[in-house]
Amino acid sequence: MTTDDISPDSDWQRDDESYELDRKLVTAILYAVDVQDRDKLIELMEPLHAADIADLLEQINAHDRARLIRLYDKEFDGDILSELDDSVREEVINVLHPHVLAEAVRDLESDDVVDLVEDLEEPQQEQILDALEDADRVAVEQALNYPENSAGRLMQREVVMAPEHWTVGHAIDYMRGTDDLPEQFYHVVLVDPRMRPIGNVALGKLMGAKREVVLTDIAEEEFQTIPVDQDEEDVAYAFNQYHLISAPVVDADGRLVGVITIDDAMIVLDEEHEEDILRLAGVSDESSLSDSVAATSRRRLPWLAVNMCAAICASLVISQFEETIAELVALAILMPIVASMGGNAGTQSLTVAVRALATKDLTASNVWRVIRREVTVGMLNGLCFAIVLGVVGMAWFASPMLGVVIGTALIINMVVAGLAGTAVPVILDRMGVDPALASGTFVTTTTDVMGFFTFLGLASVVLL
Amino acid sequence: MTTDDISPDSDWQRDDESYELDRKLVTAILYAVDVQDRDKLIELMEPLHAADIADLLEQINAHDRARLIRLYDKEFDGDILSELDDSVREEVINVLHPHVLAEAVRDLESDDVVDLVEDLEEPQQEQILDALEDADRVAVEQALNYPENSAGRLMQREVVMAPEHWTVGHAIDYMRGTDDLPEQFYHVVLVDPRMRPIGNVALGKLMGAKREVVLTDIAEEEFQTIPVDQDEEDVAYAFNQYHLISAPVVDADGRLVGVITIDDAMIVLDEEHEEDILRLAGVSDESSLSDSVAATSRRRLPWLAVNMCAAICASLVISQFEETIAELVALAILMPIVASMGGNAGTQSLTVAVRALATKDLTASNVWRVIRREVTVGMLNGLCFAIVLGVVGMAWFASPMLGVVIGTALIINMVVAGLAGTAVPVILDRMGVDPALASGTFVTTTTDVMGFFTFLGLASVVLL
Repeated sequence: MTTDDISPDSDWQRDDESYELDRKLVTAILYAVDVQDRDKLIELMEPLHAADIADLLEQINAHDRARLIRLYDKEFDGDILSELDDSVREEVINVLHPHVLAEAVRDLESDDVVDLVEDLEEPQQEQILDALEDADRVAVEQALNYPENSAGRLMQREVVMAPEHWTVGHAIDYMRGTDDLPEQFYHVVLVDPRMRPIGNVALGKLMGAKREVVLTDIAEEEFQTIPVDQDEEDVAYAFNQYHLISAPVVDADGRLVGVITIDDAMIVLDEEHEEDILRLAGVSDESSLSDSVAATSRRRLPWLAVNMCAAICASLVISQFEETIAELVALAILMPIVASMGGNAGTQSLTVAVRALATKDLTASNVWRVIRREVTVGMLNGLCFAIVLGVVGMAWFASPMLGVVIGTALIINMVVAGLAGTAVPVILDRMGVDPALASGTFVTTTTDVMGFFTFLGLASVVLL
Repeated sequence: MTTDDISPDSDWQRDDESYELDRKLVTAILYAVDVQDRDKLIELMEPLHAADIADLLEQINAHDRARLIRLYDKEFDGDILSELDDSVREEVINVLHPHVLAEAVRDLESDDVVDLVEDLEEPQQEQILDALEDADRVAVEQALNYPENSAGRLMQREVVMAPEHWTVGHAIDYMRGTDDLPEQFYHVVLVDPRMRPIGNVALGKLMGAKREVVLTDIAEEEFQTIPVDQDEEDVAYAFNQYHLISAPVVDADGRLVGVITIDDAMIVLDEEHEEDILRLAGVSDESSLSDSVAATSRRRLPWLAVNMCAAICASLVISQFEETIAELVALAILMPIVASMGGNAGTQSLTVAVRALATKDLTASNVWRVIRREVTVGMLNGLCFAIVLGVVGMAWFASPMLGVVIGTALIINMVVAGLAGTAVPVILDRMGVDPALASGTFVTTTTDVMGFFTFLGLASVVLL
């Protein structure tokens, strides 16, 4: 590569520094596809990063996608496949000519191939594995032997290591003498005679130290090894918590088997967040914008069904007070307020608890203090709004006792919200269920049922 | 450091590989504080990473925290301050002896000091700046001149750079000859004679190349510069999207002013996610588990107040149908189901849209297709549940027409949910408002109001 090839600023293809794909560019690309102008298409796509091309493919419809890929043909790069959402990826693999696919896959690093094939169906997986050279294929198949979502799937197997007694000079001579250094590495891993990693030496430190310095003297203070069967979520947590750049991966005997770098951990962290945020809203975490209507509809049904059952439960509670409501319709008018306030307060507590569990900030040491705090907050905020709503109820329906009833019901429901909002995710977490997935329904069902029950129950006792 | 100092596996202080603080350790530490056994405390804390000590301080109560810090005294490390939540950090700074604080701060890198002081009140900020040596103080004050949450605040100013015509040999000799290489660096930045960065050379590549190779020949293909005033959210996006490890920061003239590394971008990415997830639930994004009851209560009030107004709106809609409900109490029993299903469907669409906006996957190119998809999904799912609910309504209240009314109202409300759930965040985003912050209330108010209105309105026309 010469300096001319390095584009000093590739902002133009993205909307002024916002990194959003420029709509004009998308239109120009689709026009080139329409008129089947292959040279123009290649010229327009050339400055785009593989991640941007993947975004582009996800944003256009399936018909345009297929036509673009066929016209682009041999230019199609393996990195684009790596960057695509699962659903679009499967579609693209089916559209690509088998020889273009084979060529594209052969350019990828083995850990990228693992990431690419692990979610594919059997026939597509075979098709890609067949395209690989033997050595790569073995590497990929070995990685696939580790459990899904484990450190073993995430790591790269090429590690630059050095015996613990080596000096800076030894390490530099070794690295300058060897032909097959990995594409990306940031540390030399120090190992003992049994191949157990005992420290990390940063390349920058190595550059700055004198040749006779012993490597162990310039090893990093922060050093963590990752067990090969550790869940990738915990790997991402470790990188984020301890600011790791790369970490050696070890087998059950503590022997070095690979290395994970921060860029892979960052992708996992991003995916875990996405999963949490979508699960909290009752959306399947595998969904993406490019899914079809049928797939989207099917994926959202289960949680809506659970919610319907919960809503019917709440209705059953209301139906117990049918006669009370018949006598005083004002109750039907006001009751959604109590339920809604409880639901919102519960969601607040719940979200804080789910996040704190994910960041390991909510532990056995402080769970009771947090529950006490949430309940007290519920009581305080309940009191504030009880006064406001009490006055509203009183003024609207000219009944002081109605004001008292709605205020009291609100305080009770907001205390329940604080309690349920914290206890439910903690209990689910202890049971090994992802609290982001199931807490929402439990908590809002509780606050709905309690809201209607306390308000209508109190009213039937006090007002009638 | 000798090999003895490097702990090959520091898992013991965290619960078996889960990275959660061991409760027994917390109890032992608090016991040491109780009996004022300083040696024991230091022995127990010694193997803990600064991030873990920060977690520990956040998890115990304010009284224990103050006693622990006073006993720990001079051992207190500057890195612990960096890792603390804002609210606890201010408290800890007040508790620390001024000379311990000064010592702790002096050990930090200047970009960590910036991160530490930028959210502090004026007097505390002064106290810390005064503790710094002159050169560091100037560096910190210069960084603070850049806008809050900008790349300028995030970057480190020490950059290892090389003129574009240098060879590998030049670069290695330069680095081995200089005394002040930064603590952490992963690339040598190539600059033109006007100090404009034109490429990145990875240290690993430098290690593997022959001395006579020209640096531009081994520069990375992927190369992005970051404008110094860019929002840190966009910086994190760029690192995640383009898998950057470090990127040069440039001023308005394109000249190199600093470098941002992926570990800082990862922290920002994590914070942005936290902000989104909390804002979607109506929780202030500055809140943390260690906040006091009063602070928590105060922070959650505004959104609850907005929600109360929304709930009162919905009640006003119901009150328009007071006579209808008085005639047929079944309507009061069933109406929350229609509102609740709409609210849930709306939240699903909304969350998908908010995420897609954050990842720049929802753009002008595909917004109409996404809206069409969400509306169609709403209609399909509405139809499914309309049939179920229609049968329930029919069976429960022995009125076929009631079943038809609830089914129809449900379909309408779920279409509205799909439309509002996508359109509201998109419109807010165009207006420059964070869609995570405000969309929820808009969408659920819409579905509540529409749910009650269509159901009760249809009922009053059809049933009475």
